[in-house]
Order: sequence, then structure tokens, then C-alpha cells
Amino acid sequence: MEYNPVELIIKKRDGEELTKEEIRFFIGKYLNNEIPEYQMSAMLMAIFFGEMNPKEIQALTEIYIESGARISFDKSAKTVDKHSTGGVGDKITIPLAPIVAACGAKIPMISGRGLGHTGGTLDKLESIPGLRTNYNEEDFRKFINLAGFSIISQSDELVPADRRIYALRDVTGTVESLPLITASIMSKKIAEGAQNLVIDLKVGSGAFIKTMDKAERLGRLLAKTGESLGQKVTVVFSDMNSPLGHYIGNALEVKESIEYLQGKRIPDIHNLTKTLAIEMLILSGITSDKEKAGEMVEKVIDDGSALECLRRFIKNQNGNPEVCDDVNLLPRAKFEIPIIADKSGWISGINSQQIGFSLIEIGAGRKTLDSQLDYSSGAYFPKKIGDKVAEGEEIGIIFCNEETQGKQAAKKFYDSIHISDRKVPFKQLIIKITSNWT
Amino acid sequence: MEYNPVELIIKKRDGEELTKEEIRFFIGKYLNNEIPEYQMSAMLMAIFFGEMNPKEIQALTEIYIESGARISFDKSAKTVDKHSTGGVGDKITIPLAPIVAACGAKIPMISGRGLGHTGGTLDKLESIPGLRTNYNEEDFRKFINLAGFSIISQSDELVPADRRIYALRDVTGTVESLPLITASIMSKKIAEGAQNLVIDLKVGSGAFIKTMDKAERLGRLLAKTGESLGQKVTVVFSDMNSPLGHYIGNALEVKESIEYLQGKRIPDIHNLTKTLAIEMLILSGITSDKEKAGEMVEKVIDDGSALECLRRFIKNQNGNPEVCDDVNLLPRAKFEIPIIADKSGWISGINSQQIGFSLIEIGAGRKTLDSQLDYSSGAYFPKKIGDKVAEGEEIGIIFCNEETQGKQAAKKFYDSIHISDRKVPFKQLIIKITSNWT
Repeated sequence: MEYNPVELIIKKRDGEELTKEEIRFFIGKYLNNEIPEYQMSAMLMAIFFGEMNPKEIQALTEIYIESGARISFDKSAKTVDKHSTGGVGDKITIPLAPIVAACGAKIPMISGRGLGHTGGTLDKLESIPGLRTNYNEEDFRKFINLAGFSIISQSDELVPADRRIYALRDVTGTVESLPLITASIMSKKIAEGAQNLVIDLKVGSGAFIKTMDKAERLGRLLAKTGESLGQKVTVVFSDMNSPLGHYIGNALEVKESIEYLQGKRIPDIHNLTKTLAIEMLILSGITSDKEKAGEMVEKVIDDGSALECLRRFIKNQNGNPEVCDDVNLLPRAKFEIPIIADKSGWISGINSQQIGFSLIEIGAGRKTLDSQLDYSSGAYFPKKIGDKVAEGEEIGIIFCNEETQGKQAAKKFYDSIHISDRKVPFKQLIIKITSNWT
Repeated sequence: MEYNPVELIIKKRDGEELTKEEIRFFIGKYLNNEIPEYQMSAMLMAIFFGEMNPKEIQALTEIYIESGARISFDKSAKTVDKHSTGGVGDKITIPLAPIVAACGAKIPMISGRGLGHTGGTLDKLESIPGLRTNYNEEDFRKFINLAGFSIISQSDELVPADRRIYALRDVTGTVESLPLITASIMSKKIAEGAQNLVIDLKVGSGAFIKTMDKAERLGRLLAKTGESLGQKVTVVFSDMNSPLGHYIGNALEVKESIEYLQGKRIPDIHNLTKTLAIEMLILSGITSDKEKAGEMVEKVIDDGSALECLRRFIKNQNGNPEVCDDVNLLPRAKFEIPIIADKSGWISGINSQQIGFSLIEIGAGRKTLDSQLDYSSGAYFPKKIGDKVAEGEEIGIIFCNEETQGKQAAKKFYDSIHISDRKVPFKQLIIKITSNWT
């Protein structure tokens, strides 16, 4: 069936529903270069405003999946994945995947790189000497069998429609569209073969979703789309105002993750990791009892079997597994610049986005996709909103290889923190949990 | 000043005001090909939804004007122009310009070609044997001095920003944005040098503005933008449900215009032409009395001086002025296909857009900018909404050079007319008149 691209743009612009055939026509012609970039970008902005109903989002997700290859696992494989909508210091995947794998589930993870103020799991993992993430499907399956999980980069064959459209959204101000976000996440998570999915949906000033109202709308769209395509989905809404854990930066976050698996219970990392792990174990049918799932998580940390899964994963993917026993094998920065509080009070606000941008300057993040990373750089910052600080106190450290830039980053970092004269309540990390299948 | 194009798109998308510097940056970089088409189309769709306030529209209009050359006339020249937002059978410029010129005003008109269901004044004029419209500024000024008016095509130097952006709007579903329409109209009408402007703002099913509410919003934006840039603007809101006059088609509309100037008072043509002419004479300061202006209009038709201005105009621009005395010198079609009513009743609706499209098939209009026109083809259709018709009555004629296509066009034309069993009231042609300067 042939359509007029302009008429389809106008239809969506005016808030009308597009049929699956119309969406397929538009995406297909775009991928064939028969619809130019400027019509696709107009359509994306029309979708931003004209919205899409769950039926259209399901169709868009299916068409995204159809655009490329699809991996599938046997029903008995108990596959489950986790997706995070992204936050500063969010290294949770690194301890979470080995924990859930150690409990008996299989985790096929296809992950991304960092761009803008948040880091990417692949970048963090690649700070481990020798570790690779570009593997084909055969290796991916083999690694999952050997270690219980594998984390690789998205190949050109997997959901090419999303890759091209995401790149266009990034430069046309159409990233923050809930229907487009939903199709982008769900198409990849279904195409990679995970039968179950736990989504860590971040809400707050440091996340791209600022309000609970919007988060709930996105959560519903994600769950509904998963449901319609046969995937069980649980959404964990978590607060993203303070960076997660004590460290930000690629190698620093790997170090912190390893130390956590060695038994160091960093409160917020443990809280979120355990919550997500329990939901993953329930979803994949490893157990149907939350309390038991929690006990399993504690056990695989305590007996070292989760760390062993991480060790195997690193070995499978060409990395040096000895980092699991000696974190000093990870890249280390030359300089440590202290961040000093110049007043006393309580931390009342943290601009995580600005923290992320301050660390880009010292190479911890990327400005553009071509930027070179400095794996060793980053920050130590254990404070959370509600914590007390004293004038002159060292509240954090910048790790860097270039002292002048590090000092600038320390200043920017400190400027991202608001200290109030009055006591400020602590924030609850886990806000709520919803499922599409209970 | 450098800006991030994506940030500007997001700013507008989120309904924030863009500064003049930001708008200048975006348009300037686009014209230099430093901002790609896909970012401009996203910005256009963001403007469609994010709207623009009068300050932004003024800035956009000024930046459009700055993008090219600008013609100006001496204050004493009493220049005035008319712009119509377009309708089927709208040939009013052809009798109006010579009437107003015969009364002593100067009309510098830069006009366009037809695309889609409405015809363009340049196409209609070029159906006069020999007539040309591609002249430079020097000739334009000379012709205006000789005949009181000149109508030429837009040169590449005049408002190039609008020309490029209009072409992009046309293929990205962003034509119907009031701020973009306003900047597009006003930039050209100010750059061509007219100190005063009367706008014929069409409202109704046959116009692109369907409701009076939207028409009034556009009218206010046009008047306000003119005011802020020193141009006096009067807006005449006119009904566009029935095609104007009795003829549609390039040479047919020229013939009808000449016959009107020869003294044949076709009711709706006379009503609209006289109304617009009076407003133009008032605006340009030829007289301050509407009644006197009306008498002047009647006089220059009756004494042949308006027809004489048209004759001089045609001669200036290389056409055969004898058409003013013998309309049979205009191109004539081979076939005349009658349009017969198959039921009795009252005309209750006319889909003017569909009429326009039916005539494209016989060459009276363009499908694309490359389409060849058949100047002689078109239709005779003297009926208006509210008129009575009888079963078997010949209610119109299709003029064509290819009989089969003509018969198809006659069918489509007839299908565009709705005949009701019950009496239908006539519509008032002139709805209301507002000015920015009284």
C-alpha cells in the first residue's frame, strides 16, 4: 500500500491514530531512504505532540523489531533482563546481573554506551583490562550458558530502525517522547530474547523523567507494550536525586561493584540491587516467594557465588578476571582533588545532571559519540540529600589525570550541591513497584 | 553568538520564547546549510505546536526580510498592495489592481504561482498571449510609473529565507502554522515596498482557514506584525464557500476580469473588488471618505480608465493589449462538456477544494511545480450556495482539450456540489473588516 508521507505527518500532527500499515510504510520507506530525514524529523515532532495510543505504540515496537534480527531462547531458559532509564552513578547492572545469574536465571543483556551526563554500562565494563563487548549471537549464547549472563553491544542487525531513529531524535529535540521511548526500549528488550523484564524507572531532578505523574504514564506504556508482545514486565520506580553509591566514573564504578559483591553493603546500592534482583527472580520463576528471593540474594553475595559469576563473565569476554580479587588492577587516576564544603548545613539538593557534565570535562563521560574516555577519572561522593556537612569538611574527591581540569571539575561539582541551613528529610530510594502480570 | 540548535528546538517545543538573536542564528545557519533540513523541519513542527508570540513573529518576519534584497518607494508614492490567502476562482487581483491604479495609487505586486487546488495570479496573467512576469526591480519601478501597477514573480533575491522554508513546510506538514503564515506573507509584502496592505482573508470550507475564530487570530497576527514594522494593514474577512465569479481556469478568469472592467457587474466579483478597492484607497490616503472611494471605483470602471490601466500593464509586460477589446484573442478550449443536475433542490454545499482538484486533471492547475498548464481549460459555474437548481438543468460547463478527461472532470465537479431538498440561505460574502491603524 502506498501513502503520501505528508498526509501521514499531518494525520499524526492532528492527533489522529495511524494504522500499523501506515506506520510500517513510513518507517520502511525511511529505512530505504525513500522518505528523507526532514520528513522523519517532522513526524517525530508530530508524535511528540500528537502522542500515540497503546495500539500504535505496540505497532511501532513490532515494526522496530521486524526491521532486524531477533534472538530467542527456549521457554525453559528462565531469561530475564533489567533496563534502567539512566542515572548518574548507576552501575547497578554490574552487581545485579551476576547475583541473579548466581540464583539460576539467565540474563541476555544488550547494552549501550554513555552519552551526555549519564554513563553507559559498556563503557564501565570496558574499563576492565582486556574486556570486550562486541560479540556475535553465537558467542552471546555460549557466554550466557557459561556464566549465566552476558553483556554485549547492540549489533547492526538488532533493531536497526531504532538505531537510526534514535540518532535522529537526539539531534531534533524529540528524545523525550513517551511513545518513542517505549518503542525504543521495548523493541530492543524483546529482540534480544528476554522473556521477562524489570525496568528501573528513575524519577527526579537527576533523571530525564522529573515527575511521578509522567513516570507512571511511561511505566504503564512500557508494561502494556510488553504485555501485548508476550513479555512480563515489572516496573520499579526509584528516586534519582542523589547519584547512586559512593563513586561516579567508569573504573571507579566497577571497583565499587566488585567491593559490593565482596561483601561491602553500600546502603543505596544494596537496597536497589536487592529490590531489582528479587523482582527478576520472581518474574523468571526461580521462586514465587519474595522473602525467599531476598534470602537467595543475600546468600549468593555472602558465599561468593555472585562474584564468581562476575569472574566467569569477565573471563568469557576476554577481560582480566583477577580484578575481582584485586581492584587495584583497574585503571587508577594520577591526581585526587578534594571537594571541600565552604559552609555547614544539610544537603538539600544535588544537580546530578550538572555533576555528570562536570565529569565529562575530565574524560569520565562523552560529549559526542567520538569523544575519548579516561576510564580512571571520576569522583568519590558518598553524601546523599539529607546528609549533614560541616564547613571545611572534605565531602568528596575528584580523580583525574590532569590537575587543572580536575580543579575546575571539583568546583563545578561542588556548585551542583545545595546546602541548606535547615534540616532536610532523607529521600526514600524505592518509590513503588508495579507489574503487568499479577 | 553561537547556540546549540537542538537546545533551541527544545526551547520552542516546550513553548518558551525565542529571542531575536536565537531566531537569527537558526535561520542564518539553515540558509548557510550549517543547520540541516531535518533540524529545520523539527523546528517548524515545534513552532506549529509551541506557537510564537507577536514579538517572535515580528523578529522572524524581520529576519526573513533581512535574508534578501528590499525594494522601497518614496513616502509620496502612495503604494498599497493586496494579499489574498487564496481561493478557487479568486481572480480579484486582475480587475482590482487597475481600478486602484486608475484612482491614483501605486500597486507594487509580487505574486506567486498556483499549487494544489487554487490558481496563481501569475499563471492567470501568463495566459494572455506574450505576457511576461519575470522582470527586475528597475523594470518593476518603470512599469508602476507607467501603468500605476505591475505584477511580477518573486525574484531569487527577495526573501530567500521564506522561499526555502516554504518549500520545506510544504513537504513536512507545517504549512498551517499561523506564525509561519504571518511571517511568510508579511515579509514579502514589506520587502516589495508596499507601505500599506489590504488582506483578503478567506474563511470557510474552500479556504485553508475554516473557522472565524482561527481567521481572527491570523488577522490579529498579520495586523500586529505589519504595525510593528511600520505597515498599515486592513484585513477584510470574506466567505470562501462558493468559488468566486462565474469562471474558474486561467484564461477564463482573465476573460471574466476583462468583461467586468468592460462594465459587466458580476455580483460577487464586484462586491469583493469594490470592498477591497475602497480599503486600499483609504489606506493609501487617496481619500479618507469611504463613500467617495466607492464612487471613484464605479467611475473608473464606467469611464474605461481602469480597463485602460490594464491595457497599459499588459503592454508594459510584453502582452497583447488587444485582449482588452477582444477576449476571443485569449486561448480557447476545443470542447465544452455540460454539467447537468440530476436532482432538483437548493445548493447547500460546494467543496471548492475538490472542484480545484477536479480541474487539475484537465490542466487548469498544477499537481507539482513542474506540471504543464493548459491555459484554456477550466469551468463555467455561476451557481452559489443558496441557488435553486432543477433536475436536468445545465448548471455548469467544463472547458477542455481532451474530451475523456473533460467528462471525468465534469463528474468530479458535479460530485463536489451538494444539493439539498430544503431551501438554504445565501451566504454573506464580506464578513467583517478590521484595521491596525484606526
